[in-house]
Amino acid sequence: MSVTAAAGFDAAGVAAGIKRTGALDLALVVNRGPLTHAAAVFTSNRSQANPILWSKQIIADGRVDAIVLNSGGANCFTGSEGFQVTHRTAEAAATALGISAGDVLVCSTGLIGEQLNPEVLEEGVLSAVDRLAATVDAGLSAARAIMTTDSAPKTVIVEGGGAHESGGERKGKGERDEGKRVSRDAGAAATSSTFTRDQTTGWRIGGMAKGAGMLAPGLATMLVVLTTDAVVSASDLDAALRAATRVSFDRLDSDGCMSTNDQVTLLASGASGIAPAAADFTAALTSACRDLAQQLQTDAEGASHDITIEVRGAATEDDAVEVGRAVARNNLFKAAIFGNDPNWGRVLAAIGTTRAPFDPYLVDVSMNGVRLCHAGAPDAPREAVDLTPRATHLLIELHAGEASAMIWTNDLTHDYVHENSAYAS
Amino acid sequence: MSVTAAAGFDAAGVAAGIKRTGALDLALVVNRGPLTHAAAVFTSNRSQANPILWSKQIIADGRVDAIVLNSGGANCFTGSEGFQVTHRTAEAAATALGISAGDVLVCSTGLIGEQLNPEVLEEGVLSAVDRLAATVDAGLSAARAIMTTDSAPKTVIVEGGGAHESGGERKGKGERDEGKRVSRDAGAAATSSTFTRDQTTGWRIGGMAKGAGMLAPGLATMLVVLTTDAVVSASDLDAALRAATRVSFDRLDSDGCMSTNDQVTLLASGASGIAPAAADFTAALTSACRDLAQQLQTDAEGASHDITIEVRGAATEDDAVEVGRAVARNNLFKAAIFGNDPNWGRVLAAIGTTRAPFDPYLVDVSMNGVRLCHAGAPDAPREAVDLTPRATHLLIELHAGEASAMIWTNDLTHDYVHENSAYAS
Repeated sequence: MSVTAAAGFDAAGVAAGIKRTGALDLALVVNRGPLTHAAAVFTSNRSQANPILWSKQIIADGRVDAIVLNSGGANCFTGSEGFQVTHRTAEAAATALGISAGDVLVCSTGLIGEQLNPEVLEEGVLSAVDRLAATVDAGLSAARAIMTTDSAPKTVIVEGGGAHESGGERKGKGERDEGKRVSRDAGAAATSSTFTRDQTTGWRIGGMAKGAGMLAPGLATMLVVLTTDAVVSASDLDAALRAATRVSFDRLDSDGCMSTNDQVTLLASGASGIAPAAADFTAALTSACRDLAQQLQTDAEGASHDITIEVRGAATEDDAVEVGRAVARNNLFKAAIFGNDPNWGRVLAAIGTTRAPFDPYLVDVSMNGVRLCHAGAPDAPREAVDLTPRATHLLIELHAGEASAMIWTNDLTHDYVHENSAYAS
Repeated sequence: MSVTAAAGFDAAGVAAGIKRTGALDLALVVNRGPLTHAAAVFTSNRSQANPILWSKQIIADGRVDAIVLNSGGANCFTGSEGFQVTHRTAEAAATALGISAGDVLVCSTGLIGEQLNPEVLEEGVLSAVDRLAATVDAGLSAARAIMTTDSAPKTVIVEGGGAHESGGERKGKGERDEGKRVSRDAGAAATSSTFTRDQTTGWRIGGMAKGAGMLAPGLATMLVVLTTDAVVSASDLDAALRAATRVSFDRLDSDGCMSTNDQVTLLASGASGIAPAAADFTAALTSACRDLAQQLQTDAEGASHDITIEVRGAATEDDAVEVGRAVARNNLFKAAIFGNDPNWGRVLAAIGTTRAPFDPYLVDVSMNGVRLCHAGAPDAPREAVDLTPRATHLLIELHAGEASAMIWTNDLTHDYVHENSAYAS
């Protein structure tokens, strides 16, 4: 039920006609309060889409009543005409909802450099307002409406108490390695029925995400909306969101390409009447973000391996992240994994491009539990590694300190090239 | 005739048995003097192969009598045993030639993390010494012996007077866009017969190169040997080589991956007896390096487009290079070009990841002469661009200053993925 899992939120997803296919392409999420606190983080790309420019202004006061999201066009590099389209979209929602356009965020995703038709968006917004509901279906429709090349909607629910459910409708692209998952709160196994609103005894976080390519730090081509009925101030929401995204979406680096449209938004209604401790809220939010990040990784365009790069023994966490990213962006390594080739030399060549302190003759490299390189020299034979499972674990031990980090990426495949060479057509 | 085009140099290429295929795999170039001045530049990767560690010590005094190069194995991350292999290779050449091992450079290329058999290398060196000659064929055999996934040997000859010949045996992979080439000295069109030694009236530079992947700055997976019979001091050779590589090999960024084994070596025999002006020598050397760099680009693994990224109007040259590299490393842009899709939005998204000063609403982007984006908004329709030719020209006008730079890269293709997923097999 995604964003409607938390009390106080209505949602809708409609086919506004932006996509030629007639698929759902416009989502609306409305915070019915009593609180309308909000926080957001944005792409660090300096080429920013019009909805990013708009939303950065809107979020400044920490109040958001509604958010409109469209797929089918990024509204980026569309000049002042494009900014007007974003503005008109927010105005349409505000008028229909009886709120201020200054409290309406807008997100867009799709091809850069194409004008969106403002009338189509306005009509879509009106249609979405008509269908607003707090139901499971409404939340799922919203999650579907933001999809581009995603193969399935991505949703998550985290109970303040610890239970956790993710992506009920996700299509399996292969086995998930639950043993390697980072988040998963401890607690009772959650089922859908656990999360009907009547049974709520605490507070919740619900969320939806889209993104299946251009997944790189400073976010990714991702749009994420997280909702909570916890009582949290706007400034605490901001702190929690920055802490959570730093170790989740910002550790996802599918293809090294940073988008112009990324936005992660967190809305708080306070409808549960419960004010959790900041640490508890941040932990639950981090769990939700990690879950969505891993759904994005699993659905990355054309990927045949989900690669967890674990860097241990770095001098600092920043060093560990830099090393992990360098490997995650190495096309030769990624192509080798596609071919089930445990080519650890390419890992070391990538590490050598970083500024992280390390001695090439102390480094160990393991894949899927087999140590292939010890102290900078060959160790186990390549044949000992089985790279046929989709879940791939690369462990780099730098022996330069005590810090560690994980980066999630994918392999470089024929399908990646195909999907991205045909995207605009 | 490659490295033997300059007077004073002998060369050989033999099948030592390092490659299982029986192909040529060991090259030797000997400087017969009267001078034995030399300079070299090395990969900036901090993971460096044993031959790099060796050669950096040897070049320190500016004297080199001979250089041994092998394909079939990188001798990188092979521990102290691997360093001994390099040492023994140099000793074998020194003993056979009656020189000091301290004046013998070694280069290796191939897979990382596999030990080379020192006896095989030693026998190969002896065989190469037996076949040393100053002939066209000897130079060509040396150029062939350093090939890995190269489809053809890469050679160049530049006359001090201005004539220029490149890659006589190169296989055409498509049309070369001569109009866009940077170097090509002015002067009479050169033919092979122009370059027989008897007709020499001045000084020359000859060269050979290998490299067909991992082409990125701080060199690339490239081994290059340049020879000259000009009279130039070791320190002047060093200055000229750094100036030439900075605007040639360092501007080639095929796949963003930096190798552990790259080395560009320049040897001067002084046999012409002519001491050119430093500016003339540097210009000729730059011409030779650019020619070889473009041969490397044209032969990049799996590529179907040779992309020249021209950045104009940058605040500084460094900014222009950073912008060009960011685009050259953007997989989404590269996949789009493979699909003949002029997706200029991906260019702007890549520019936005740099630190270069620019205003997204002033940028112009053109492909193959058609301006697709003007002042940050759509200009000509995508359909107006023909991306079917192999030679692709991307022009980025930042309107942030007066500096410019060119970066050469390739598209991201199915064949790139295939070749690099199957490399080790």
